[in-house]
Amino acid sequence: MGHRNFSDPIFTLTTGPVDAYPSVLRALARPVLYDYDPAFLEQYEATHAKVRQVFHTSTPPVILQGEPVLGLEAAAASLIARNDVVLNLVSGVYGKGFGFWAARYAKELVELEVPYNEVLTADAVADMLKKRPDIAIVSICHHDTPSGTVNPVAEIGAVVRAAGKLLIVDSVSAFGGMEVLPETCFADIFVTGPNKCLGCPPGLSLLHVSEAAWEKIAANPDAPTASILSISDWKRAHEANQPFPFTPSVSEIYALDAALDLYLEEGEQAVWARHALTAKACRAGILTAGLKLWAASEEIASPTCTAVAIPDGIDEVKLRAAIRARYGVVFSSGRAETLGKLTRIGHMGPTARPTYSLISVAAIAGGLQAAGVKGIDVGAGVEAAMAVIDEAQA
Amino acid sequence: MGHRNFSDPIFTLTTGPVDAYPSVLRALARPVLYDYDPAFLEQYEATHAKVRQVFHTSTPPVILQGEPVLGLEAAAASLIARNDVVLNLVSGVYGKGFGFWAARYAKELVELEVPYNEVLTADAVADMLKKRPDIAIVSICHHDTPSGTVNPVAEIGAVVRAAGKLLIVDSVSAFGGMEVLPETCFADIFVTGPNKCLGCPPGLSLLHVSEAAWEKIAANPDAPTASILSISDWKRAHEANQPFPFTPSVSEIYALDAALDLYLEEGEQAVWARHALTAKACRAGILTAGLKLWAASEEIASPTCTAVAIPDGIDEVKLRAAIRARYGVVFSSGRAETLGKLTRIGHMGPTARPTYSLISVAAIAGGLQAAGVKGIDVGAGVEAAMAVIDEAQA
Amino acid sequence: MGHRNFSDPIFTLTTGPVDAYPSVLRALARPVLYDYDPAFLEQYEATHAKVRQVFHTSTPPVILQGEPVLGLEAAAASLIARNDVVLNLVSGVYGKGFGFWAARYAKELVELEVPYNEVLTADAVADMLKKRPDIAIVSICHHDTPSGTVNPVAEIGAVVRAAGKLLIVDSVSAFGGMEVLPETCFADIFVTGPNKCLGCPPGLSLLHVSEAAWEKIAANPDAPTASILSISDWKRAHEANQPFPFTPSVSEIYALDAALDLYLEEGEQAVWARHALTAKACRAGILTAGLKLWAASEEIASPTCTAVAIPDGIDEVKLRAAIRARYGVVFSSGRAETLGKLTRIGHMGPTARPTYSLISVAAIAGGLQAAGVKGIDVGAGVEAAMAVIDEAQA
Amino acid sequence: MGHRNFSDPIFTLTTGPVDAYPSVLRALARPVLYDYDPAFLEQYEATHAKVRQVFHTSTPPVILQGEPVLGLEAAAASLIARNDVVLNLVSGVYGKGFGFWAARYAKELVELEVPYNEVLTADAVADMLKKRPDIAIVSICHHDTPSGTVNPVAEIGAVVRAAGKLLIVDSVSAFGGMEVLPETCFADIFVTGPNKCLGCPPGLSLLHVSEAAWEKIAANPDAPTASILSISDWKRAHEANQPFPFTPSVSEIYALDAALDLYLEEGEQAVWARHALTAKACRAGILTAGLKLWAASEEIASPTCTAVAIPDGIDEVKLRAAIRARYGVVFSSGRAETLGKLTRIGHMGPTARPTYSLISVAAIAGGLQAAGVKGIDVGAGVEAAMAVIDEAQA
Repeated sequence: MGHRNFSDPIFTLTTGPVDAYPSVLRALARPVLYDYDPAFLEQYEATHAKVRQVFHTSTPPVILQGEPVLGLEAAAASLIARNDVVLNLVSGVYGKGFGFWAARYAKELVELEVPYNEVLTADAVADMLKKRPDIAIVSICHHDTPSGTVNPVAEIGAVVRAAGKLLIVDSVSAFGGMEVLPETCFADIFVTGPNKCLGCPPGLSLLHVSEAAWEKIAANPDAPTASILSISDWKRAHEANQPFPFTPSVSEIYALDAALDLYLEEGEQAVWARHALTAKACRAGILTAGLKLWAASEEIASPTCTAVAIPDGIDEVKLRAAIRARYGVVFSSGRAETLGKLTRIGHMGPTARPTYSLISVAAIAGGLQAAGVKGIDVGAGVEAAMAVIDEAQA
Repeated sequence: MGHRNFSDPIFTLTTGPVDAYPSVLRALARPVLYDYDPAFLEQYEATHAKVRQVFHTSTPPVILQGEPVLGLEAAAASLIARNDVVLNLVSGVYGKGFGFWAARYAKELVELEVPYNEVLTADAVADMLKKRPDIAIVSICHHDTPSGTVNPVAEIGAVVRAAGKLLIVDSVSAFGGMEVLPETCFADIFVTGPNKCLGCPPGLSLLHVSEAAWEKIAANPDAPTASILSISDWKRAHEANQPFPFTPSVSEIYALDAALDLYLEEGEQAVWARHALTAKACRAGILTAGLKLWAASEEIASPTCTAVAIPDGIDEVKLRAAIRARYGVVFSSGRAETLGKLTRIGHMGPTARPTYSLISVAAIAGGLQAAGVKGIDVGAGVEAAMAVIDEAQA
Repeated sequence: MGHRNFSDPIFTLTTGPVDAYPSVLRALARPVLYDYDPAFLEQYEATHAKVRQVFHTSTPPVILQGEPVLGLEAAAASLIARNDVVLNLVSGVYGKGFGFWAARYAKELVELEVPYNEVLTADAVADMLKKRPDIAIVSICHHDTPSGTVNPVAEIGAVVRAAGKLLIVDSVSAFGGMEVLPETCFADIFVTGPNKCLGCPPGLSLLHVSEAAWEKIAANPDAPTASILSISDWKRAHEANQPFPFTPSVSEIYALDAALDLYLEEGEQAVWARHALTAKACRAGILTAGLKLWAASEEIASPTCTAVAIPDGIDEVKLRAAIRARYGVVFSSGRAETLGKLTRIGHMGPTARPTYSLISVAAIAGGLQAAGVKGIDVGAGVEAAMAVIDEAQA
Repeated sequence: MGHRNFSDPIFTLTTGPVDAYPSVLRALARPVLYDYDPAFLEQYEATHAKVRQVFHTSTPPVILQGEPVLGLEAAAASLIARNDVVLNLVSGVYGKGFGFWAARYAKELVELEVPYNEVLTADAVADMLKKRPDIAIVSICHHDTPSGTVNPVAEIGAVVRAAGKLLIVDSVSAFGGMEVLPETCFADIFVTGPNKCLGCPPGLSLLHVSEAAWEKIAANPDAPTASILSISDWKRAHEANQPFPFTPSVSEIYALDAALDLYLEEGEQAVWARHALTAKACRAGILTAGLKLWAASEEIASPTCTAVAIPDGIDEVKLRAAIRARYGVVFSSGRAETLGKLTRIGHMGPTARPTYSLISVAAIAGGLQAAGVKGIDVGAGVEAAMAVIDEAQA
């Protein structure tokens, strides 16, 4: 691309896009096939089958040709009918954001909101569903990435299912990095993507749609069809002899296929475990170094993202710029309400390796120290992270 | 992906997805950067600037994160307001298809339609605009790929502009393969993509939006915002300090950048010339071999796609399957009304090389001969294609 | 690499280096591992085992870290002791060339030579071995690429084995493209490489060494050790716990591994068949177009290389330059005695696909026609090649 | 490659092979061209010119087609004639090893040897040259990697030149990572390779040969020709119209070209500085953590490799295996006399980034601690490394 002012960083430890696994990058370089070539049709069907395999679902999944915000907008547009009351559960910026889409399509939007460093409880949801029996659909952001906190989605899902409501789960930055499956959290639409914990580039959405959700969509006259926002257009696209609604993103499908191969080969339990261990080591290091987590408690802190609270008076943008310049490490900022208040360290896919926590702790602690924050102990932080790693080996 | 029943073909000579240039495939394998990493921001800005350079436009282009059907649907959704009368010009399946989107958003859809092996004329458009002065927006598919025919978009555009109407041009499979620029055809919204003549995988839309179109969109209360269908969300995304509405498709941006480098290095005139020569050689071969073009005349046949009329009684699906099995060559089928009636040979990006016409002619003529069609002369066809190539060297 | 005067050709239809299979190219891009990393040791052992699998040999093969000329020089240096009489069988430039190495190490070099468009016979070898019972070692170039002719190596090998002599076979451009295995041709040292019919880049030699050859090498005080020319240094390098004599070419090993996966998946019989069919179609086309083969008879023409005799008065260098400029096709020249007299069309690895013969015939016939040669019928040539392909499908 | 027992490590921090830069890996995936294709000839010439550019030499360099042990063996075989007395300077295993080659070709081998944790001095060399005026050639290993120590090659070179002797410098693991140029150290043959500090895979040797050396080679009747060991065969291979002695390693040339582009773009001073800073931070961390360097003093410790002395009683093989299993980090072992006594941390090419020193220090200190070594302070070590990095930013 000619002259560049910025060279690539050494470590991209963000919350997405994350760097892709090497074999995923190579898969992107496969020759581009015609989408109706039998070799590509076979590929698409195989990849789709692997998505179902990692989803463990009773209905075939849906692959949409755009990064997961497409999946989320499409879920709202398809499932929420003009007479629906929607309960949107909010524990962070992304959960809040979904409310805007829900409000666009619903008759009424009800929100249950907690501070953005806390998470929701199943009891509160149950209470609200009792209070408002007219609620038809509940939506929740599983892991609200801008806060780095994880809602108890399985418990909440059970409450929603028991109440006979439909549930939309945004598990974009959770699936693949922690123990969650579409049907064990009772999701009717479950949205995730390859570009977080699966270690792919952004460009696709992966959806589980329950039988009940398909019925609801079919009954919704406003559900998009012949549109990029349509879920139903793609319902049977993986079947032999079914056309694609439009051209699928061939190279992204290759990448997804390679990522699923890695996931299946390593085993989901092992993948989840290394995400958890990386985050645990990172949190230990952060706390011991004298920094604070954004999450109100460690129990609700995400295994795929550690949000570090930034002390008052520190310019978070400059902090990250300094960390990049000094150590070659890139972290994510907060978003909207959390912007400037926290810095996020990703543990997703290829970076969900415990050793990265040493770099993360050193870099953020070093960056804050350099910014003049007192009482930081970089060495103690790294040692604490090491101790978590070492202990896991014993 | 484990066991495969179909190996990759040898030659993908389709009308899209087309195989990508080798350097584009390698660009896809670049490390995935965080979208807000300064190195990626710089990359995005540079790539955007190259799009503008190849567009030669007075306003900055817009990159949307989905293959060009997204660009087309977004153009309809954004520009067409509920009180607009839209004239949709139809000379093929894709032109017809746009009418469905236009009708979704417009007060009234007027169509001017010609048989799908002919093209529209500027005079007919002028007449219609006189007849229906309430028309606000005109839409046209420049190269209707399922027919392999090219509308005189610059002449029609001049008529539309003179009449003070706004023009939407679908130049998806034309731009980059023939002489057309957004502003020389007076497009207010011009939609193309990297996955045809630029030799990239599918996954992005490239749009030119005129000042007048921006004003119209701003005045349209129904124009999508906070949506994958929004054009305006991405209006300033390339500017330093402007956020991305959502995560751009990082790897596809890399691919586009590499493709634009090739395009700029070779020079647009040279690129267009080799598309034209490849198609010319192909048509000469097809006709001399005893086959027929779908297009009513060679003058309107596309330089990026040669549609070959398939004789009655031939099963076109089986024909292409036999050609693939026998020669390893993949062609495109027709679509909708043209399905089964023609086979399409792509001359796009890396396959727009005259020598490919030899393979194309041999393969389709050989396939038809094997299917029992009489009067085919494969050798004469290949010789005629050769003669065109040889003549161009003289 | 900055500005380039020459862009890449469209088709590289040479006799080596040949273009690599796409998956081989991607394998080259795998992260470079430390050679003693257990993951690389496992890789090396696995790749070595696959070489043995395709060799079907009773002794483990040897991988040398340089393109096959290294393997050939090393074979001469290791096997030929200072008191040995060597019979070098010569039917072309490469066979002749081996004699220079043989003479360097042997007491005496005896040669049996035929014109460079003919091949040797087992009878002639048997006669010579009777005449000169002091001969200890026989060497032969299986497929003398600069002539495109194939010696009956299995028959000759049987004669050599029956006479109790050791045999060195240069099968560099034959193995993987025709039915030949190290032990079915009774080779004591069999040299090939991944960069011809296996579709890899140049950089490695693959050797079979018989038990008898190992004994001979061990008894040869001049056999290189602690040298790049040593075969014995690498004898056990594939074994767990055995060191590498020096750093193996990590990326080339990855490439070889990917190529062997393709070979094993397709099946050797299928691979050989497509080489044979491609060459057969090419020869039919060449002859029907009015050109002549270099080989004295079709029976001895190679399935991996078709050498076309160039008419007197034609500048072969200019011919190939014109073919490249005009059609984007690159062929190989002759070498030494055959330089200027013939042009070689490779059918190796990824280009050993029958459809390529259409391009080959068209390009060389077209090039000669453009050079003013009379009586060439391009169309008839292509049709004849097509007929061979079509017939194979029936 | 099917089932694997070992997955790739996370960090390959070895002393070669080292991981390659991402753009180098992608360059390896470029289509393989015919070596006599004009596009490849142009490429080879351009790459050769870049080697000369980074060498800053008055004579054109030579590229040999094998990893640097080939270059070293070829240097010995070419330059050392049967009547030469060679002084081999030995401060480590690789220097000692060169003596075996020198002895093979020389009349007499004289060695000046120091303990393998020390380096030679120019004075000692001057003394020896006075004592033995019959010495014709001096050889030295610049950076003896198995010791991680750097000889003062420029000072020694000046002494050798002043005495009118020829000098062979093995700068394999030094060039590109520290301030050294072939002519500033007065080398007559200077051997390096792309697979250390340039960040390429192993497979090529890069040589500077002075005019005096070329004359000596020309006068040496035993200098190899028509051999993989020949330097003179390749003397003019980069020139237009000159043939290649045998097929160059096409893909490795692509990789080298990409690596040289990076080197030239970053600037040699900047490249050297980051190697130096990485090593400095690493040494500070190692020492502060309570570990010891192998080098007798920091002054002689290499900027491209930090050799850490391993305490008695520790099984170095098990230590590295544990570090790999626990932290995913791969280091290099010692070699021969240093095997088992030290562990080597590479700072070469892409890993010569200061932040890697944090991982290196943490991993080796953590590994030794886990092995039961007392008195190790991981946190203090990492802090000390950080302090060096931070200080460099101030």
